[in-house]
Amino acid sequence: MSRPFQRLSRDVLVHNAWHRYCRDRYTRRDGSEGEYFYVDMTGSCGIVPLFADGSTVLCRAWRYLFDRALWEFPIGGMQPGEDPLQVAQHELEEEAGLRAREWTPLGRFAPYKGVSNEVCHFFLARELVEVPQRLEPEEDIEVHRMGLDEAERLLMGQDLLDGQSVCGLLLLRRHLAGA
Amino acid sequence: MSRPFQRLSRDVLVHNAWHRYCRDRYTRRDGSEGEYFYVDMTGSCGIVPLFADGSTVLCRAWRYLFDRALWEFPIGGMQPGEDPLQVAQHELEEEAGLRAREWTPLGRFAPYKGVSNEVCHFFLARELVEVPQRLEPEEDIEVHRMGLDEAERLLMGQDLLDGQSVCGLLLLRRHLAGA
Repeated sequence: MSRPFQRLSRDVLVHNAWHRYCRDRYTRRDGSEGEYFYVDMTGSCGIVPLFADGSTVLCRAWRYLFDRALWEFPIGGMQPGEDPLQVAQHELEEEAGLRAREWTPLGRFAPYKGVSNEVCHFFLARELVEVPQRLEPEEDIEVHRMGLDEAERLLMGQDLLDGQSVCGLLLLRRHLAGA
Repeated sequence: MSRPFQRLSRDVLVHNAWHRYCRDRYTRRDGSEGEYFYVDMTGSCGIVPLFADGSTVLCRAWRYLFDRALWEFPIGGMQPGEDPLQVAQHELEEEAGLRAREWTPLGRFAPYKGVSNEVCHFFLARELVEVPQRLEPEEDIEVHRMGLDEAERLLMGQDLLDGQSVCGLLLLRRHLAGA
């Protein structure tokens, strides 16, 4: 399958602290033109912390766009030029108050392929020690430690699931199954 | 956990055929103000078609934002006021050239909770018959029928996974396991 579009131009319509909202103009194979509106976002890093006793950590985070709290794995956004593993390490300390000595990449996915170029990287974090949590003023997050079965039950039992955490869960299962 | 934000205003900065890009202003509990930039998108509907012989259908769709083709379950966007099941039925006909007599909701998730208010609904479609495929000019999609194991292998074997399809796969597994 070959590229059906050729980009002509790119305009950043809105630039804020979190992402850029852009419009591209492009030509199709038949020469006709079109435009594509999207969020330009470097990426994000999700973490599944796993303690030696088999327990993990979930966050309960208030999500403004849905006016409710969701159960989620810890996750943080990347800025241009940042390294996924370093962002994951930083995020785990800030959000969950944990530092890990062993990191394993679980895979990466496009959470919202049609409208954002973000790539979400998931990591398994083991050999954990507790450090002070440092939340930003916008973040309203509770951190809960629990067994992995209970975490799966909470993540999958919500009326509205957090898609990125669901992907993280399947990537974790694949890893633990040795695939 | 109670609502930590109170919305003050909402501005639609860009309105196009696919979504609206908005900025809200809000106050925090301490009275300070902030702003939130996001995509306002009604939702989307993903479909797992399942034939009597256990085979399914995957699409191979060119994704402009990643300059590559991805393996995906059929999925389509909703317009305001549309019903998820009707959109799923319409999408399965248009994109995959299939009509189903039996539909089962598998669950719903927020694919991109921080930046889009979209809710993605997944359905299992059975009792399938073939009808003519009708693609829109922007869509560059191949449709492939294959066993469910092969579909899982293709969806999970990509260097960059399609997050929405990965969620659909876990929702399907949960349903087939009778949970």
